[in-house]
Amino acid sequence: MSFLSWMPQALKMSQAEIIQHAGLDSAVYLRIYILGLKIFLPLTITALLVIIPVNVSGGTLLDLKKEIVFSNIDKLSISNVRPGSERFWVHLFMTYLFTIWTCFMLYREYDNVAFMRLHFLASQHRRVEQFTVVVRNVPRSGNSISETVDHFFQKNHPDHYLGHQAVYNANKFAKLVKKKERLQNWLDYNQLKFERNPEKRPTKKVGFLGLCGERLDSIGYYKQRISEVEKRMECERQRILRDSKAVLPVAFVTFDSRWGAAVCAQTQQSRNPTHWLTDWAPEPRDIYWKNLAIPFVSLSIRRFLMSISLFALVFFYMIPITFVQSLANCLEKVAPFLTPVIELKLTKSFLQGFLPGLALKIFLYILPTFLMLMSKVEGYLSLSALERRAAAKYYYFMLVNVFLGSIVAGTAFEQLYYFLHQPPARIPRTIGVSIPMKATFFMTYIMVDGWAGVAADILRLKPLVIYHLKSMFIVKTDRDRQKAMDPGSIGLAKNLPTMQLYFLLGLTYAVVTPILLPFVLIFFIFAFLVYRHQIINVYNQDYESAGAFWPHVHSRIIASLLISHLLLLGLLSTKKAAYSTPLLLVLPLFTLWFHKYCKSRFESAFQKYPLEEAMEKDAMEKASEPDLNLKAYLADAYLHPILQITVGDGEMEEVRVDKNRTGVCSQQ
Amino acid sequence: MSFLSWMPQALKMSQAEIIQHAGLDSAVYLRIYILGLKIFLPLTITALLVIIPVNVSGGTLLDLKKEIVFSNIDKLSISNVRPGSERFWVHLFMTYLFTIWTCFMLYREYDNVAFMRLHFLASQHRRVEQFTVVVRNVPRSGNSISETVDHFFQKNHPDHYLGHQAVYNANKFAKLVKKKERLQNWLDYNQLKFERNPEKRPTKKVGFLGLCGERLDSIGYYKQRISEVEKRMECERQRILRDSKAVLPVAFVTFDSRWGAAVCAQTQQSRNPTHWLTDWAPEPRDIYWKNLAIPFVSLSIRRFLMSISLFALVFFYMIPITFVQSLANCLEKVAPFLTPVIELKLTKSFLQGFLPGLALKIFLYILPTFLMLMSKVEGYLSLSALERRAAAKYYYFMLVNVFLGSIVAGTAFEQLYYFLHQPPARIPRTIGVSIPMKATFFMTYIMVDGWAGVAADILRLKPLVIYHLKSMFIVKTDRDRQKAMDPGSIGLAKNLPTMQLYFLLGLTYAVVTPILLPFVLIFFIFAFLVYRHQIINVYNQDYESAGAFWPHVHSRIIASLLISHLLLLGLLSTKKAAYSTPLLLVLPLFTLWFHKYCKSRFESAFQKYPLEEAMEKDAMEKASEPDLNLKAYLADAYLHPILQITVGDGEMEEVRVDKNRTGVCSQQ
Repeated sequence: MSFLSWMPQALKMSQAEIIQHAGLDSAVYLRIYILGLKIFLPLTITALLVIIPVNVSGGTLLDLKKEIVFSNIDKLSISNVRPGSERFWVHLFMTYLFTIWTCFMLYREYDNVAFMRLHFLASQHRRVEQFTVVVRNVPRSGNSISETVDHFFQKNHPDHYLGHQAVYNANKFAKLVKKKERLQNWLDYNQLKFERNPEKRPTKKVGFLGLCGERLDSIGYYKQRISEVEKRMECERQRILRDSKAVLPVAFVTFDSRWGAAVCAQTQQSRNPTHWLTDWAPEPRDIYWKNLAIPFVSLSIRRFLMSISLFALVFFYMIPITFVQSLANCLEKVAPFLTPVIELKLTKSFLQGFLPGLALKIFLYILPTFLMLMSKVEGYLSLSALERRAAAKYYYFMLVNVFLGSIVAGTAFEQLYYFLHQPPARIPRTIGVSIPMKATFFMTYIMVDGWAGVAADILRLKPLVIYHLKSMFIVKTDRDRQKAMDPGSIGLAKNLPTMQLYFLLGLTYAVVTPILLPFVLIFFIFAFLVYRHQIINVYNQDYESAGAFWPHVHSRIIASLLISHLLLLGLLSTKKAAYSTPLLLVLPLFTLWFHKYCKSRFESAFQKYPLEEAMEKDAMEKASEPDLNLKAYLADAYLHPILQITVGDGEMEEVRVDKNRTGVCSQQ
Repeated sequence: MSFLSWMPQALKMSQAEIIQHAGLDSAVYLRIYILGLKIFLPLTITALLVIIPVNVSGGTLLDLKKEIVFSNIDKLSISNVRPGSERFWVHLFMTYLFTIWTCFMLYREYDNVAFMRLHFLASQHRRVEQFTVVVRNVPRSGNSISETVDHFFQKNHPDHYLGHQAVYNANKFAKLVKKKERLQNWLDYNQLKFERNPEKRPTKKVGFLGLCGERLDSIGYYKQRISEVEKRMECERQRILRDSKAVLPVAFVTFDSRWGAAVCAQTQQSRNPTHWLTDWAPEPRDIYWKNLAIPFVSLSIRRFLMSISLFALVFFYMIPITFVQSLANCLEKVAPFLTPVIELKLTKSFLQGFLPGLALKIFLYILPTFLMLMSKVEGYLSLSALERRAAAKYYYFMLVNVFLGSIVAGTAFEQLYYFLHQPPARIPRTIGVSIPMKATFFMTYIMVDGWAGVAADILRLKPLVIYHLKSMFIVKTDRDRQKAMDPGSIGLAKNLPTMQLYFLLGLTYAVVTPILLPFVLIFFIFAFLVYRHQIINVYNQDYESAGAFWPHVHSRIIASLLISHLLLLGLLSTKKAAYSTPLLLVLPLFTLWFHKYCKSRFESAFQKYPLEEAMEKDAMEKASEPDLNLKAYLADAYLHPILQITVGDGEMEEVRVDKNRTGVCSQQ
């Protein structure tokens, strides 16, 4: 019983409480599952009550029974309806109904989330990012960067400019911080060892890898090294804060009102549109500091190269794995003396059987990390934007390699070749025809990947395994253990695309093989409960983007609708239902228009900050706190976090704790 | 000799003088021809010196002489090179060279035009549109529109808001104005008649079409009618200015500084992004008044429907013309009693031979007007935007029906069918192969359409014919004659796409059949001279958009480059030059990146107004004219032009003349 005891608790908390407890991102993330339920519950009921009886009584397959082997599921699918049958009118009507219902739900939910976002931003207490704009590509002139920034904004925003925070090139300092942490960890470890075994003071050889050299007392040695590093850190810190060359051509510009910041973030500043690029500053903990100072041309080249790389990755990722497969042959050719070893049964089965599978698993395991790395190269400024970009990349990968790859057999590369050498009009037909045949596969997929994946998440199997692996090999001190136990955040980069795939499957099969819908529905119910629980009890929130990922969710579901229409069009065109083509062509056009409309209606709520809102908040604040010292409030908000750490052990801990606390406070 | 006497004069004027005389739009328009010269002069020379010798000495066709009939031009083209020959390296190298040169020139010219635009805007004297923002979709609340607007902007732009000008629904008034003009024209005609023939006072029957009813003295009758209409106009005018229901939910909001207007135009005002849409106000004479009050949803539906219509128009325009062709048959079926008439040789040849051709001619003649109408339905606010949209539509039409239509035989509808049923990889190949074969056709096309068209323009043949037709049938008074003689403006909607087609032809054939290049080059030289002359001496400028069409020109030339790469790729893949494919795939990728880079580098100069610039101009003005009464200056700038006409004949003329004069003044 206690196995399911978390469920009622997970359901008790209200949405407002979740927002307060875990941030708006988490609440909006849960709304995706609610959207899934809202879309698929009526769809499932209608489809089971209407389409399945129509399909079952269609009776083509019953006639062919003796010739073709078919599963029972096919009896329930559209394949069971005789070509040219009048029954396809039912399917057509249901497609219209489903599309309109989905669009209606999408519209309501977009409206709802946009409202939640605006309300959240409006009801928040004062936050530094409301007054701050990040300025990139400050042109180098004779003066220092700071003087240039001051002069420019005093001239062009005279009424609202307050000050700015320079961004320092702290790479060297960051390295020292890391080094100190490592040394500190070794010191703690040795002190622990000494406490447990007070007779024997731990010692250490100081030479190469601790293998040779003089043997010294470890605790004394590490203490001395740490104080050395601390001295160097202090020097470096002073150098950075003083040296004008360490200032990057980027700045966080603060204004005396939300209105001033909103104006600066949304307008073009300079004649040369590649200089003085202004944008909203992400909240301090959301900033990815390394990407702040990428020049404009480099950014443009990076994004271009990354989009080519993504294309290559999606379509040609099988090539290195195929190479691993043929490794045995290659080895024999390159190093003939190894032949006897390779020809051993064990080696051969390892090289040809186990290794390629392992390579594929490893590849899929590191893929999200790799995609995140690609997004980082693209130069986005905030962690939230990086996660969204990585999620988009993962979605393309899944769409091509899981969805299309399962329907059209063969690797993505073969598919690409196939699509290039098939008439465009025939592609939806070929895919459409094989859609009903793959229903069983996708049902299994939903169970294995979806249900089991969610179950593994509630049991936290993967983190458990990794934690134990880590505590076996890495963990030496409490600090290490704490690090290893950090549950992390929701992991949008991987979870969003996975979920979007289920939307795609559900919408594609809704009319074709409705028996798949309950599987999708169960996934959404189960995942909703589990993630609600995890968000409330397990995950930490790294940043708050106020639901900035919703437009992506919306447009991916729209894309799923479009794909489902095209595939149904292809499928019905082989079923001698000629009347369906023009009627089905209307649907994607309607969906496209709907998408455009929603975009212009809601998207700006996720990108811009209306002046009306800013003015209102400013006025309220002025009335309630007339003598607020904003300048002091904003002074060091955007100092590089590493530079905020003052040297000295105890203090460092304190500053960190403080930081976390303010982070939590400002969410509430 | 006097035939060419206009030429030296056309070359004498400097660019600065042209800008002063005819506006920046005209000067930028001429720069397109200069860009054509800069791109194609080196291309022509290099191609003639390098590619033609390589092609001529290739010698496949010489071997096949007896079997295939080929023209001499084919000897100079790439068809003459043996498949699998090493000579294709030369073509490959030249493609790279040409692409890089074209991109280099495009970059320089974009830079140049963007600079010209910014300089023009900066060096202009004070203009009303610099201080004005058009606000659309003002939400209806309990108060009147004027109060709502005042309240909203006083609240959200307290430091810079000056006032606003309401927009009135003046449709009824406009009808009265037209009616009065018609009556006035008849009065003038009758007075003229009476002056010439003083013995006989002209009379008129007042009944249906002047055929029946009482016979009255014409001059008295028209005078009385005019005074009646004038009274109604005055009533209507008062009603409009007073009635709050005649105020549309649109306003021209004026600010006390360019900075304030720039901020308001570039930011989002309201929480609901479909309300309070702000944008730069076009200059008063550029406004298309009818489109100001289209609600948001309607706009979204209109644009969507228009894009579907454009698709239908481009691909299915032949259907009604084919219907005309089969008119004879239809008539016989519908009305069998007409059969003897239809079977007459004369009728039959008219119905089947002359009528379809005439229908096609009429269709092509009214096409630009029709496309303009479609753009008007799309709801753009300014005449300049309407012309740009119409030009884009015409370009798509030309690209599909002239360029592709000439290469792939058959109607656009057949082509669409063909493209949908061909593998995508084979399409560039099929088109690429037929490219060299069509060189002769396009050379003729350039001569007939390009050279002759330009020559007709300098002789102003078409306006001459139309003028004489008009003066035969319509012109009755001096006013009519003046109207008929108005030379109009450059006609961007038709000239831009035509020119872009020549860029496409030149770039496509540069490597394939270089002998076509001199024809393109001559077109650009000739057209440059002619349009320079026309702009200086003939055309009137309707509005000034400060070269807002350049981004379109740039992206169409980029599209031409991409098309040329794809076609060359297809062509070479049939020539057994396998090494070329990967090398040629790099080029479109590079071109795309270049386009993206240019877009982010320059496009904002055509859409936004940098705050730096605004601030500088404001400061300068404040220094030079400290006690300027801006409010009075801006008071009636954006009153509907019809309402500016005060009733009464003489005055009306004066107001009009004044308007023209101020228009001319503000250009200088």
